[in-house]
Amino acid sequence: MTTSADIRTPLSPTPRSTLTRYRGQRDATDRAALDAVLDTGTVCHLGVLMHGAPVVVPTIYGRDGDTLYLHGSTGAGNLRTAMTGDVCVSVTLVDGIVYARAVMHFSMNYRSAVIHGRPVELTDQDERLHALRVIVEHAAPGAWDNARPPTKKELAATTVLSLDLTEASVKTRAGDPSDDESDLASDTWAGVLPIRQTFGDPITSADLTPGIAVPEHVRTRNATS
Amino acid sequence: MTTSADIRTPLSPTPRSTLTRYRGQRDATDRAALDAVLDTGTVCHLGVLMHGAPVVVPTIYGRDGDTLYLHGSTGAGNLRTAMTGDVCVSVTLVDGIVYARAVMHFSMNYRSAVIHGRPVELTDQDERLHALRVIVEHAAPGAWDNARPPTKKELAATTVLSLDLTEASVKTRAGDPSDDESDLASDTWAGVLPIRQTFGDPITSADLTPGIAVPEHVRTRNATS
Repeated sequence: MTTSADIRTPLSPTPRSTLTRYRGQRDATDRAALDAVLDTGTVCHLGVLMHGAPVVVPTIYGRDGDTLYLHGSTGAGNLRTAMTGDVCVSVTLVDGIVYARAVMHFSMNYRSAVIHGRPVELTDQDERLHALRVIVEHAAPGAWDNARPPTKKELAATTVLSLDLTEASVKTRAGDPSDDESDLASDTWAGVLPIRQTFGDPITSADLTPGIAVPEHVRTRNATS
Repeated sequence: MTTSADIRTPLSPTPRSTLTRYRGQRDATDRAALDAVLDTGTVCHLGVLMHGAPVVVPTIYGRDGDTLYLHGSTGAGNLRTAMTGDVCVSVTLVDGIVYARAVMHFSMNYRSAVIHGRPVELTDQDERLHALRVIVEHAAPGAWDNARPPTKKELAATTVLSLDLTEASVKTRAGDPSDDESDLASDTWAGVLPIRQTFGDPITSADLTPGIAVPEHVRTRNATS
């Protein structure tokens, strides 16, 4: 998915992308961690400011190098708004539920990326096509070259945005619960219940021409997290 | 989890909680759909306005009747900010990847709840304890009564917020791809690759007193979606 991996900008956390809690403990502000979270995630949550209040909606995305791509209908209000100010994109992988000996130490194991910035609308047709390919290939690797390309009309009805990944942070919690020393002798069980995202068997569309087999890029796809 | 299910307010969508696209097709503004998404989800994405821009972070939550509860450290900037203005909470269940015959029709199957409102900080100790129980029981059903209750010091270090579920919307996509009539005879496979969230085997904390078995409420837990 990454085509410009050789030239990478270091993450440049700003106050709002720098964690105020657990600094040095749960944050890992390096490119590899950010890339891993973004490439493993399925949907992001896009936060925009509409009529003075935040609006958060899920959407698919794709990453190429230091750029995150988003797309949507030209009629989608949140994308129109996204072009007029800063947005926040959050991608979260939930890895497990942390059972502690004390109720206030229950927690989640997770990997989370948070990106701030002002998206730019892509207008160059080649750039737009590249971004759409990156988004579709992120959601469905191997699919782009096997499906009908966009028509001019479809492209005209689609807004494509790019968001620079410079102002971003990654936060991770992993491992055992963090119980108080004084609770360690408790007879309450403590540990982690892992959560995994897996794929089920492909369901062929009811209106598919009979005889078309599930292609290898679908059949052999592995779990995303 | 619901203790006040008998008295329910109907959803009251406002312009910002009403879908501008696919109206009547993908929105299902009824309580049962909202409750189902919130009760099935593991984390929500909380969007707040900080320094004039949206900030979106994942956090656990719980629902009781028409109220969503959130909590965090008193030192968490996003919770402090959440009390001073409107927030948006989004819970998304990703159900599958929709493979279409045309690249622009690729999509996700999902169930998504979006809630708008101004959170209220809970100050009454009984209400705070109830909210914390709802949050912990949402993340780990059966856990609250088996773990050490909060101390006064722990409670003093915790912010607990309630958010009314009146201004909310649910959006769902399910089923086959929506290809154009003219693409139906294509020889490209079309269908859905289901995504499921499942639990792995419990991992006991390394520092647990030997001999404590994994309790039934952990061992027998089913997948969340």
